[in-house]
Amino acid sequence: MRDVELADSGRRVVVIAVERGEEAVAAVNEVARRRGISAAQVTAVGGFSGAEVGYFDRQDRDYLRIPVSEQVEVLSLVGDIAEVRGEPALHVHAVLGRRDGSTVGGHLLRGEVWPTLEVVVTEVAASLAKRVDPETGVALLTGTAEN
Amino acid sequence: MRDVELADSGRRVVVIAVERGEEAVAAVNEVARRRGISAAQVTAVGGFSGAEVGYFDRQDRDYLRIPVSEQVEVLSLVGDIAEVRGEPALHVHAVLGRRDGSTVGGHLLRGEVWPTLEVVVTEVAASLAKRVDPETGVALLTGTAEN
Amino acid sequence: MRDVELADSGRRVVVIAVERGEEAVAAVNEVARRRGISAAQVTAVGGFSGAEVGYFDRQDRDYLRIPVSEQVEVLSLVGDIAEVRGEPALHVHAVLGRRDGSTVGGHLLRGEVWPTLEVVVTEVAASLAKRVDPETGVALLTGTAEN
Repeated sequence: MRDVELADSGRRVVVIAVERGEEAVAAVNEVARRRGISAAQVTAVGGFSGAEVGYFDRQDRDYLRIPVSEQVEVLSLVGDIAEVRGEPALHVHAVLGRRDGSTVGGHLLRGEVWPTLEVVVTEVAASLAKRVDPETGVALLTGTAEN
Repeated sequence: MRDVELADSGRRVVVIAVERGEEAVAAVNEVARRRGISAAQVTAVGGFSGAEVGYFDRQDRDYLRIPVSEQVEVLSLVGDIAEVRGEPALHVHAVLGRRDGSTVGGHLLRGEVWPTLEVVVTEVAASLAKRVDPETGVALLTGTAEN
Repeated sequence: MRDVELADSGRRVVVIAVERGEEAVAAVNEVARRRGISAAQVTAVGGFSGAEVGYFDRQDRDYLRIPVSEQVEVLSLVGDIAEVRGEPALHVHAVLGRRDGSTVGGHLLRGEVWPTLEVVVTEVAASLAKRVDPETGVALLTGTAEN
């Protein structure tokens, strides 16, 4: 991927062009780690040649995996970056559009980029932490942040 | 909900972790009122154990209510906060994802949060007003704003 | 449309109220040109009385056009503005909601606004360029930007 950091007086913005063949979640996490971004809002559009999204099963306390095995438009990709166990972690949900305009979506587990994915990462704080909730197994924002 | 305000040199950002069992629209409106945020961009992801979305019927000039009676992923929640009749009011649309990855969406009327809803509220001005349009009954941005 | 620019110490934010009967893509492009915004993140919600979305066909290297001939909620509209051949160009994907809550989406080619479309344009840099990729015919971010 190619990424540019746009310094402001305040919060940083990083625009990432994830490139053909790259996996989206890994690419964004790698940029976040390299640039030390651990609290951010994320939006993106583009396309995937294949993907896997998840639906959180309340009983199993795990994601049910929904494979998407076709070229799809990434209609929306919205979420955030926060620290889980001391590492920045991307948490985004995706809505994907098929050839006939119908949609499928879930928690983004994996997305193979084609031809591009344009990601805007907007820092919201110096840090924002999540802790794993023992009851659900889900990482929840603790609400503690420092700027 | 837990909310943290991230002061910048310019616009404020508030990250809200709406918690299990809370209703999303009321929770975000309460934070906006308490913190005096009346002009903002809003995005969120998370999950609902149930929700109600609306489709604006042009003839009835009212929302047709679409109940969603199952656990869904909040795939996207996008919108804004502006002042309607002197009070900050949340206006967001939601796309929700079911167990099989299929989606349902509309104007968010109500959403019971489970296990969490992570909301990023980015202030865009000191104020941004809407007036109720007599022809449609919809609150429209007047385009007047002060920063 | 009515648009207000909210100057900050850093990046500008423009809130656009696209009005009844206006075409959304043209309206946002016109504001971007007039205000000299060539690198921005875009989100919006509202309604369309009709629209056309596209699915990028890998073989034809062009958008397959999907007409939407009914009143729909604009559930999400996410994307960016970058320079293509020296002109600011809007690139947004839309998820649209029908009367029964079902959704249809794609690359937004055209949308007739009714009753309103509330757009938030957040500048991310002074400029952000795309070049047309010879292999796919798609305009891709080059990753070069100046702030």
